Amino acid sequence: MVSLQLAHQLDNKNVLLIGGGKMGVTRLKKLLPVGSKVTLVSPRFDPSISKSGMFPHQLPSQDGEKVIINADWRHQDEKTGEETVQIYKVIQDEFKEEYFNLDGEEEYWHLILVCIASDNKSEEIHALAKKKYGNQQMVNVADKPALCDFFFGANATLGGGLQLMISSNGISPTLGGIVRDEITRHFQSMDFDESMKRLGDLRVKIRKATTNPSGPDKPEDIQYRMRWIKTATDFFGLKNCERIDVEKLVALFLEMRADNMSLKFASPEEMVATYAPSK
Amino acid sequence: MVSLQLAHQLDNKNVLLIGGGKMGVTRLKKLLPVGSKVTLVSPRFDPSISKSGMFPHQLPSQDGEKVIINADWRHQDEKTGEETVQIYKVIQDEFKEEYFNLDGEEEYWHLILVCIASDNKSEEIHALAKKKYGNQQMVNVADKPALCDFFFGANATLGGGLQLMISSNGISPTLGGIVRDEITRHFQSMDFDESMKRLGDLRVKIRKATTNPSGPDKPEDIQYRMRWIKTATDFFGLKNCERIDVEKLVALFLEMRADNMSLKFASPEEMVATYAPSK
Repeated sequence: MVSLQLAHQLDNKNVLLIGGGKMGVTRLKKLLPVGSKVTLVSPRFDPSISKSGMFPHQLPSQDGEKVIINADWRHQDEKTGEETVQIYKVIQDEFKEEYFNLDGEEEYWHLILVCIASDNKSEEIHALAKKKYGNQQMVNVADKPALCDFFFGANATLGGGLQLMISSNGISPTLGGIVRDEITRHFQSMDFDESMKRLGDLRVKIRKATTNPSGPDKPEDIQYRMRWIKTATDFFGLKNCERIDVEKLVALFLEMRADNMSLKFASPEEMVATYAPSK
Repeated sequence: MVSLQLAHQLDNKNVLLIGGGKMGVTRLKKLLPVGSKVTLVSPRFDPSISKSGMFPHQLPSQDGEKVIINADWRHQDEKTGEETVQIYKVIQDEFKEEYFNLDGEEEYWHLILVCIASDNKSEEIHALAKKKYGNQQMVNVADKPALCDFFFGANATLGGGLQLMISSNGISPTLGGIVRDEITRHFQSMDFDESMKRLGDLRVKIRKATTNPSGPDKPEDIQYRMRWIKTATDFFGLKNCERIDVEKLVALFLEMRADNMSLKFASPEEMVATYAPSK
């Protein structure tokens, strides 16, 4: 069955990752860039966790401290001001039920991820999580589709705040990755930041120009705005959005709105030549 | 902040949709094709819900039955055998806390979606859901990013079981939709079903050819297989995967494996000419 793909806001949210091997590392690479507050439980740790700086302290070991908290897990570079997100807490141990516990009543696990080799132990953790937090608790057990509320996919950022995911629903991650790479190559030359800025600008200015000062906006106005913007941007196509002249387009919108809320545009070629000319 | 995009398995899972207006309809269009068991609560219903066949019975009304269950919500066409998924249950009313209740202890809401005009009422439902099911309950309130655990994006299916999502993280759904359309156009001529079949075949046959009969596979074998397939498919590129000769490639794999687990391939041009010739 196909999936419903959703974009999770994980900023500052607790995620429990059980298993610090190679598969656990692939999860960390997805979790840390989106700002999630990761607790990692594992008896052993893949060397890349230290080497990559995902955890800046010495990892806990059998002989020393078992639990180490990285208080400065959202680390801001003093020079560049850039933020890197690291693992929040590491527990060196086989998983035990008590490691589910979080400080504070409001606290919860947004996601629970299991990446260990033992099938029995995986099933046990899955059952415990569902029992403790209800079936609504989102759990993913690596390589066990029947124990997954959701799957990971091949992700990429395209610029302009746009993100891409290709899901193969577990059938062929290889093909998913190839499609992802082909798409990022295809869009490499496009300036999504600029397109996003101009389209956002256009939307705000058109909304402002037609806001009803004495109450909520009329439904016909909201609908016309939406249809106008959609039709206009379809005419331009993706390549040209980064060059649209926002002021000129707002003027065109007001003119067409005054003309009985018209949706009759010039030809795509004329539209591009007039409102998104090549430099 | 960027999102983590995940693919949710919603087949037969309960989803609560509060609000049957235009926005509610856009949610239904995403929920039904993935097989989710939708309960819709709304005092009024957009006409397209009946017209589109999403709910085949007369919708409940103020004067008649308030709750109608569509027992045959997974409807199989007798002639074609094709399955269509319809709304499971419709409650004609403003939302009340009792509508959270499900039959059976094991039951739960995988997602709770709120699509109503009133800000106060939206906030109230969000708070109730989190109180009743814990903060781990996934909730999305339309047009209220602060009350969303996740966002919807622009989705498409690419064939071969592959699915695409573009997320704009609420900044520009228009641009997200344009990018989605451009990508589906770009891949229109490609036969993903065939590529998926051949790559899957290749993986299975290579695994079979190198399975350790006397225990679990050796890590170096697993790693070599993965690296070989990845390198080979990168050489072919997406366009040519639908034509790869699986038998010939398995032979090449065994030859290179015998040669000290080599990863030295011929040039991409030669690889394509020999192992994925144009018809």
